[in-house]
Formats: sequence, C-alpha cells, structure tokens
Amino acid sequence: MTREECAALDAADPLAGFRREFALPEGVVYLDGNSLGALPAGTPERVRRVVEQEWGRELIRSWNDAGWFEQPYRLGRRIAPLVGAEPDEVVVCDTTSVNLFKVLAAALRLRPGRRTVLGDGAAFPTDLYIAEGVTGLVEGARSVLVAPEELDRHLDGEVAAVVLSHVDYRTGELLDLPGITARVRAAGALMIWDVCHSVGALPVELGAGGADFAVGCTYKYLNGGPGSPAFLYVARRHQAAAAQPLSGWFGHARPFAFEPGYDARAGIGRFLTSSPSLLGQAALEASLDVWERADLGAVRAKSLALTDPFVALVEGLDGIEVATPREHARRGSQIALRHADGYPVVQALIARGVIGDFRAPDLMRFGFTPLYLTYTDVWDAARHLAGVLESGEWRQERFGRRGEVT
Amino acid sequence: MTREECAALDAADPLAGFRREFALPEGVVYLDGNSLGALPAGTPERVRRVVEQEWGRELIRSWNDAGWFEQPYRLGRRIAPLVGAEPDEVVVCDTTSVNLFKVLAAALRLRPGRRTVLGDGAAFPTDLYIAEGVTGLVEGARSVLVAPEELDRHLDGEVAAVVLSHVDYRTGELLDLPGITARVRAAGALMIWDVCHSVGALPVELGAGGADFAVGCTYKYLNGGPGSPAFLYVARRHQAAAAQPLSGWFGHARPFAFEPGYDARAGIGRFLTSSPSLLGQAALEASLDVWERADLGAVRAKSLALTDPFVALVEGLDGIEVATPREHARRGSQIALRHADGYPVVQALIARGVIGDFRAPDLMRFGFTPLYLTYTDVWDAARHLAGVLESGEWRQERFGRRGEVT
Repeated sequence: MTREECAALDAADPLAGFRREFALPEGVVYLDGNSLGALPAGTPERVRRVVEQEWGRELIRSWNDAGWFEQPYRLGRRIAPLVGAEPDEVVVCDTTSVNLFKVLAAALRLRPGRRTVLGDGAAFPTDLYIAEGVTGLVEGARSVLVAPEELDRHLDGEVAAVVLSHVDYRTGELLDLPGITARVRAAGALMIWDVCHSVGALPVELGAGGADFAVGCTYKYLNGGPGSPAFLYVARRHQAAAAQPLSGWFGHARPFAFEPGYDARAGIGRFLTSSPSLLGQAALEASLDVWERADLGAVRAKSLALTDPFVALVEGLDGIEVATPREHARRGSQIALRHADGYPVVQALIARGVIGDFRAPDLMRFGFTPLYLTYTDVWDAARHLAGVLESGEWRQERFGRRGEVT
Repeated sequence: MTREECAALDAADPLAGFRREFALPEGVVYLDGNSLGALPAGTPERVRRVVEQEWGRELIRSWNDAGWFEQPYRLGRRIAPLVGAEPDEVVVCDTTSVNLFKVLAAALRLRPGRRTVLGDGAAFPTDLYIAEGVTGLVEGARSVLVAPEELDRHLDGEVAAVVLSHVDYRTGELLDLPGITARVRAAGALMIWDVCHSVGALPVELGAGGADFAVGCTYKYLNGGPGSPAFLYVARRHQAAAAQPLSGWFGHARPFAFEPGYDARAGIGRFLTSSPSLLGQAALEASLDVWERADLGAVRAKSLALTDPFVALVEGLDGIEVATPREHARRGSQIALRHADGYPVVQALIARGVIGDFRAPDLMRFGFTPLYLTYTDVWDAARHLAGVLESGEWRQERFGRRGEVT
C-alpha cells in the first residue's frame, strides 16, 4: 500500500467529514484515543455555557431549568444505542470502578446461594481490585482469577458472577460476548461486561448478547474528556430486584422527601448515588452530539480497514511482534506490538508526533479511532515506526526512562 | 439597622474585595451558596485551559506534563487548612456519598468487634442511606439513627463509628465537634464528620478536634461548581491500618505495574479509586485560588455579622419562626425560617431576585457566604421578605406549586 492509495481511500471515506468535528493539534498522528479520546470541536462552547450561563448566571435554578437532575438519564439514553441497550437500561454516573462495585454487589445479592466472582487475571487491574474489594466485604464471598479460555471449567454452582473485559486493554483482543454470556448464564451465573475498550470502537450488543450488567467509561473512544463520567447497564429483567449498596439520595424513590430510610427508585435510577459532575457531563453531551450522527457499522468497517494495513506495514519491522489477533472477529480497534525496548520506541515516536502508549513489559499500543483518523495517518504512523527502528534513534538517552502513562 | 448603616459596614468590610472575584448576575441577592456556591471569576478561564490546552492540544501527555495524576493530592493539600488538617490527611475524589461509604467501611474494619454505626436521623439523608448500604453488606452490621442529644446513652461497646453532620442542612445548627468527638472516642468508637455545610463557612478543626475521618463537598461554600469533586479526611494515625473496599487502581501502591492483586498505597492515597474528573477539579482549583487568600477567622466574623442583623430584621414578621439557634457557638452560616407556606414564599422571593431555597415541610433556608455577600444584600433580602409577606404576593397561583430544588 502506498501513501497515494491511502489518500484515495481518504477521499472516498464516508466518515471523512467527522475529522473536522475534532480539534486535533497540527502535526500529530493521535493513536491514543483508546486511552484519552480527542477533543470534539463543539465541547469548549458547551462547557463554557454550563460554567458561565447555567452555573454562573442561573445558579441553583439550573437544577430544574437546565435539566441537571435529568442528565444522568438523558446521557444514558444517548449511550444506549452505542451498546445495544434499551434507553432505560443505561445511566451515566460516577466512574467505571465505582459502577463495577455497584453491579458486582447487586449480582451477589441476586445469587444469594453463590459466593464466587470470576474475573480475568489479565483484565485491566482496577476491575480485579474492585472485585477483591466487594468480595472482601461480603461474608463468604471470594474473587477468583481465571483466563477467559479456562472459564468454562470454573463455572460451577458457586459462581455468582463473571466479570470480563470485552476488549483486552493490552492486546486489543475482542471476546465473544454472546457466546461467553450464554455459557455463563447457562451455568446460573450473571455476566458483567466491561466495555471500556469497545464502546465507540465497534457495535456492542449487550441486549442481543444477553448481558446481565455492564460498565464502561466515556473518555476513550467516546471522547468525553479526561475523567469524564462513566456509565452502567442493567438489563431490564434485573432492575426490579437489583439492589446496590452505594445507596445515595439520587437513587432514592423520593429524594426530596428527605426520609431517613432508603427506598430504591424503580428502574435504572436505583443505581445512581449522588450529584453528578455537571461539567464532566456537559463535555460528554457535546461528544454524544457527534456520535448521534455516526453509523456504528461504518465505524467498525473503517476501524478494520485502518488496522489491516497498519499490521501489514509494520509486521516485518525489526524486533516487532504483533500481539493482537489477526482475525477481525477477535479484535477491537487497537493494535498492540511487542518490542523488547517498547518504552523508548514509543517515546521516540511521540517525539516525531505519533502518539501511542506503552504498557510494561514490552507492549506498544496504538488505538485507531475511525471518526478522526485518516488512512494517510496510518501510513505516516507506520513509516515513522519504521524510521525510528531503522535509524535507532530510540536509543537516545532522552527516550530511555520508563514512565507512567495511562 | 438601616440600609445606610449596612452601607457603612460594607465600606469598612475587610473582605469586601472578594466580591469582585465572583461573577454574580445583576439584580440578584444570592442566599443559596449553602447549596450551590457562586462562580468565581477566574473559573471559566481555568476550565477553558484544561479543555482546550491540556486536553485538546496536549492530549494524553497531560497526565504527566500537566500533573493530572497529582491533582487529587494537590487539591487535598489546599483544602487541608480549611478543615484544620495536615496536608497529607486530605484527598479530593469522587462524591461525598461515595467517600462516606469508603470511610464507613474502613471504620468497621478498624473496629472488628463492634458492628453498629450510629447516625443522626435528622442528618442529610444520603449519609443515612449510605450507612444503610454499607452495613447491609457487612455481616452482622447495622445502622441505628439517634438524635445527637441522645448520642451518649447509645455509645455502648457495640458502636464502631458515629456519623454526624457538623452543621444541620435544615436548621443550620452547628454541633460541638471537639466535645462530641472526645466522647465518641472515649467510648472506643470512631468519629466521622460530614463537613459539607461547614467547610468554607467557618474554621473547621478536624485535627485539633480529634476527628478520625471526615467527608465533605466542594460545591457549597467552596464554590467548586455543580457536582464538583468531594474530599475525604483520614487522620494520620489511621492511615496505615485503614482499608477501604472501593479499591480501584488509583489507590494501588504501583498502579502502572498492572498487578492482578490489590496492594494499597501508603498514606491517604489508598482512599483513591479511579480517574478523577479533570474538568471538575480544574474548576475547584480556580476556586481554591480565591480561598487561599481568605482568612477563615474573618470569614467567620463576617458570617455572624451578616446573620445577626438578618435574624433581627425578620424575626417579627408575620408567620415567621426562626429555626436556627441564636447562640453563635451553635450555628453555621445559614439561617432557617419556618413559615407554614414556606414554599410559595421562597418562590415569591426568587421572583424578586432574592434566591434562597425551601425544605419540606415548612423550612426556608438562607445561606450567607461572606466572600461575596454584602451587608446591604442582607438588608435588601430582609426588606424583600417583609414585602412578600406584607403584600401577600406569595399567594399568587404561579408561586403555589411544590418543587424540587436542592
């Protein structure tokens, strides 16, 4: 593939117009949207309006007049189609970790005779730590780590819930959501998906796939901004019986009656806890204005059409091993490359304006965000990686330190 | 007191200069800063910088280059002097409710032989609901509601922790923090203070008062903005042994080692859970720039000097009963007035530009924020209340609906 061929693909790209809706810095090929998505062009004005108008001028009145109370639901309804959910099955609140705590505790209550939570020992660790945290509080409960491929033989009558990442944060491997969910449910357990690395990268089918619960963040492919609020999904069939212990007043059936005893709201609202971050929610809202017009099928098609040539262009490079599965059905929108000196190589790439990231011990991660990346970006990134490796410039001392980057 | 006397007090007010640092709308006397504080004039620019520069231009690099990882600690160190804490005893994260869950769970672990949590049945209900939530998860634990004046006779060997609001959200009554803390600790229990309604309103002495834990929000007197991040306090003597169950990766000793097992950080950092809301934290940072120059003793003196004449001006009005204690030592910075038709009276006041709020069944709340209120504001507010009551204009149908305002 030549750069001219990439330019031709860009000219014919049905999603090309979306790039103008992001405020990307000049001279950067941004391949870290799987960690922190880029800034939508409309976000600064939306945030400014909340700060200066809704807060500054309208003050307390905005809780009603600007619809602040409804924001967790309104944003949830807008995320629902991105994860294959019904509008009343998703709500936006808190962080992924806090939301996972809520749904795990709810799952343990829905399966009172079972006390084991299974997680993937290679999953993003905060999920494992939260599973440890919640099982540490509940008498007799325990958290057990298994590899997804060994899941089936651990699915015994003790398993209350299974937590898995839909896409592996390191390798970018995509799990079979409907298949695994069916086997977990057949074993009498509840299936909780972490869709942080798949929402906005591909169509996620929580409803059709039979998921019981899910959690996800909005600052990666959804471009909600640094530390933007997370979301959670509760299948409608569980909402009436599900109870979660972060039972703050926003989850109360009558929050303004100020009753001393907790009485959970009907529906997904019982998973809310407290006042939402209105600034964070405003930024997410501006991003969802973009997503509303994006066809997820086209996003997935472009994601694969971007990553296939990237793999082809880099796989013969010196010291590079492709860690991401090749099959389309087994990967998300991220390509992970192993290199023994991955850290300084990534730093040298960043110095050239190609931003990816590194995960110890040897993994270089490159996220491909179809809304704002071009085919020529992919070609340029691959060429820079080749240049860094061939020139040996990554051996310069300034690239040598091991750093901390999410 | 005449309006001219108020104008003379304003002219001599050592805090008068702070008013210019807030972007208050014209024609409004804002007496709801105890619910949502006003917008500091420097906040829009600070938020804009995080959105457009740190996120938009620097993207993922800001985690290191803009110090995003350090924000929860940096903001905590800046809040510490406002609550009488050491710099390493406060951290900014999540919401008040989520943080209360963490410290309550930690307290139950620090007192394994005791399973009762005492709360004030008249406290802001989310605290009670969270106590219900955490005790519902822990085998044998229970949450019991008592009136603060009956606390002593409930302090038996079963009580692990007591949670009280420093200032009552309805009446504005201020509790004796050192006295109560001493009695709770003498009984072998741990004392957790909710300082949402006192931080920024008066000097809070968590350290000198012997508090074990505390939680608080930043969107009231601290002017952090709608849904701004909360904080928590853990006395240094408990930090090594305290364990909390919302054990996300930000509380891990080596978050970027991505280890499968949780190992809590040393110090206050173990109470962090996950990625902070950088937009919310940016707004809070701008507000703390103002607080850094405010003398808390002067704030408290002006608070009392504002509320005394307000009480004097309104206490004879038709149908009004003052619900807030008169003694300075027993009240915060809020005056609550009972009126049988409090809801429409507050609505009529708002229509005149005097913004307070209402709590069922009959309580009108007026918060006095010394940084941006003047003595003439107080005089005008009292005159408008008299006008509303004397004219009977609150009987107009448009004021009659019972609403939902925090």
